Amino acid sequence: MTDSFDKLTDTIAAVSTPRGKGGVALIRISGPDCREISRKIFVPAGKTRPESAPRTSVFGRVVFPPGTADAGETADTALAVFYESPRSFTGEDTLEICCHGGVLVSAAVLRTALLAGARQAEAGEFTRRAFAAGKISLDEAESLGLLLDAGTDAQLKLSRAGLSGTLSRECVSLREEITGLLADLYARIDFPEEDLGSIPEEEIKTRLQDLIGRTERLSASWKTGRAIAEGIETVIVGKTNSGKSTLYNAMTGEESAIVTDVAGTTRDVLTSTVSFGGITLRLSDTAGIRASAGDGIERIGIDRALGRLSSAELVLFLIDSASDPGEDGELIARQVADAPGRTVAILSRCDLGPARESARELWERFPIRTKISSSDPDTLSRLAKLVSSLFTDGETDPGRDPVISTARQFTALEECREALEDAAGALGDGFCADVCSVCLEEAAERLSALDGRGAGAVSADVIDTIFSKFCVGK
Amino acid sequence: MTDSFDKLTDTIAAVSTPRGKGGVALIRISGPDCREISRKIFVPAGKTRPESAPRTSVFGRVVFPPGTADAGETADTALAVFYESPRSFTGEDTLEICCHGGVLVSAAVLRTALLAGARQAEAGEFTRRAFAAGKISLDEAESLGLLLDAGTDAQLKLSRAGLSGTLSRECVSLREEITGLLADLYARIDFPEEDLGSIPEEEIKTRLQDLIGRTERLSASWKTGRAIAEGIETVIVGKTNSGKSTLYNAMTGEESAIVTDVAGTTRDVLTSTVSFGGITLRLSDTAGIRASAGDGIERIGIDRALGRLSSAELVLFLIDSASDPGEDGELIARQVADAPGRTVAILSRCDLGPARESARELWERFPIRTKISSSDPDTLSRLAKLVSSLFTDGETDPGRDPVISTARQFTALEECREALEDAAGALGDGFCADVCSVCLEEAAERLSALDGRGAGAVSADVIDTIFSKFCVGK
Repeated sequence: MTDSFDKLTDTIAAVSTPRGKGGVALIRISGPDCREISRKIFVPAGKTRPESAPRTSVFGRVVFPPGTADAGETADTALAVFYESPRSFTGEDTLEICCHGGVLVSAAVLRTALLAGARQAEAGEFTRRAFAAGKISLDEAESLGLLLDAGTDAQLKLSRAGLSGTLSRECVSLREEITGLLADLYARIDFPEEDLGSIPEEEIKTRLQDLIGRTERLSASWKTGRAIAEGIETVIVGKTNSGKSTLYNAMTGEESAIVTDVAGTTRDVLTSTVSFGGITLRLSDTAGIRASAGDGIERIGIDRALGRLSSAELVLFLIDSASDPGEDGELIARQVADAPGRTVAILSRCDLGPARESARELWERFPIRTKISSSDPDTLSRLAKLVSSLFTDGETDPGRDPVISTARQFTALEECREALEDAAGALGDGFCADVCSVCLEEAAERLSALDGRGAGAVSADVIDTIFSKFCVGK
Repeated sequence: MTDSFDKLTDTIAAVSTPRGKGGVALIRISGPDCREISRKIFVPAGKTRPESAPRTSVFGRVVFPPGTADAGETADTALAVFYESPRSFTGEDTLEICCHGGVLVSAAVLRTALLAGARQAEAGEFTRRAFAAGKISLDEAESLGLLLDAGTDAQLKLSRAGLSGTLSRECVSLREEITGLLADLYARIDFPEEDLGSIPEEEIKTRLQDLIGRTERLSASWKTGRAIAEGIETVIVGKTNSGKSTLYNAMTGEESAIVTDVAGTTRDVLTSTVSFGGITLRLSDTAGIRASAGDGIERIGIDRALGRLSSAELVLFLIDSASDPGEDGELIARQVADAPGRTVAILSRCDLGPARESARELWERFPIRTKISSSDPDTLSRLAKLVSSLFTDGETDPGRDPVISTARQFTALEECREALEDAAGALGDGFCADVCSVCLEEAAERLSALDGRGAGAVSADVIDTIFSKFCVGK
């Protein structure tokens, strides 16, 4: 499955807890030499050794191994638990040492393991071994990555469901269906004149259409999955004083979870990742846009706002209901109309009374629109629902249904779907069972690329890419 | 032992690993309701429950407890280990849950415990409970604090020795000696005419002098302990181009461990904490001092350099051997001589040939002096040895000997020593056994304040102060 087989034959070690000040740190050691390393570096306080009592928490001292400068000296007192292969996260023999959480002390404990023959683990290498041992599928590994990075509750929910195998099981089920269909097709090819074991042509066509339907439904979940996992590049634009900052603060403030506050690359663009309407928005507030701006700092801010506009998937265009849009409003409206993203026109400050006719006229030019008012408590949730409807498929429940959550999974699934449609085409063109079976083989293989299981090979590059996104120690 | 007894009757929970991205997080729950909470939030994958198999690592799901909004929903899959009272870190029933390391997912696991009846632990509260249960002495708790914060190998070594009980055992031994002496004194007071059980006056005097000698030796270790644990405020001063930055870089660079790089509060003072000669220096580099500086930024830098000089314990005064010290050199020399810290005069750039007479003359005015030369590889280690000799007692081995490592311990020990000397005085003044015994009682009590054990009470304020320095989760 991977070209770096040698990587799986040695024993790796890493601090698996975050670096920083904490009460406790966990050092994980995994691989064939784990028992030997444990014997070299762990001195139990009682008679029981971790390796001789798997899954038992054993108190003792972690010491520098024989033959090193500090041999026998204590790195720390700790609790150690040994997990015997294959009943461990990686499927290999694993020792987990829970020691004190200081940066230097946990580094010292790790050093004892490295001195005793372990190698510093690379990013994601423990999970990669779990995958190689068949303990976890590729899509589950991707869910695990999302779980560790989760910044919103929706991301957490999505990743938990993925990690619990909702997508994985759907893949297995789809593959079984394809394999079953293939078996029936081969029966027809091998024994064309016999009825024995072969099934009616119509049934094969029906089953193929069912399969296509299921892959299409799963593909459709990528819309929701992407909106949650990757998030939607969103920009708030509008004239100065049109309520941009108020909206930005409301969306990043009490009404929605602030997740990260990345200082913008420039002073004039604020960026936050927020959970909004159950999806993730990578939200930018921009400088107000004025046609009359000169060549100074204001001009730079405006240029940056326009730059954001060209890359945003969602544009929240604020139109102040209480003032005339004027030349500046028209300028922004043109820019927004030309931008590739979807635009929600928002008539703001509606608590100030009826909107000016010119503002309303501008607002009504946009097909997707809503109003906001500081006196209406439902303003924000209405906007959230509207935004959510634009970027989810409206059907997928990310906590329960199988959801495609990475572009890689989506590509593999689309290739599977195309192969299935080719198979259906072959049947339509006068029931060519040979061609159809080749296409089905291809479909099964593409599906295997999705979860990394079954017949289909996943390239080492793809695997490298997936696991390199993990932190060291996972 | 503490006025906040109520704090010890409930069950506390916290994430004990550092906050941040990591593979694994550990949530610790401790207190009388631990079993019940475990039953509410942990669903084992197999038949074994953590509470029914203490010290066994049990795989399962952490779920939201009954009666809550998300009852039964999975917060994460995890490994749980139950430690039965009193065989746990805190001495109480403790559940340790090892879950995935994301910020949100570990927060969700903690929330299940809080919803099931645990309270968010305060900083240091687990260790405080370990202290209340007699699992750890006060000086060991202080060593644990130093261990978690350790930024240099010397701090690590010192804290490990303290945590392993070197100081604690010396306290116990001293207290036993005092108590034994008291018993013999009481025997003399109660039965003055009998020989039975009483010991010669001279022996009591000898034993008391021995005790005083031991407390003095222990007191002396504070010099070394403080230099390692607290560190020495050190400033490098000298004329511009006298080699200050070269020395600063050498001390913070390859030749010694850089520990922290705190950006100076001003651009003209660089600060680092470094391990140097086995002790810790809080090192500041300063702007070059010139008498002719005007009122501008340079003046501010010089004033700040002079400010550092007045608070430094160690002044490294660089004198360029290759140039005339001149008016500026004399100005700095006067400031340095007036400063309260100890000064090491360093004749720099000695690789450029014989020193100028005026530079050498200035250098020789300072009793503690050394030379540095970029062509001599031992330059820095000579300086390190010299600095170390100024701030350690030269006898204490912090990895082996009992060492006083906090001002609080030192104060308690000094009070103990004074009481012992009062006792010796009482014996000198015509062997007044009554007065002597009162002094010995006082000495024992002061010693108990040091390690928090035995008869002496430690005030709740003192305990609060010690444990509040810990992080949450420890």
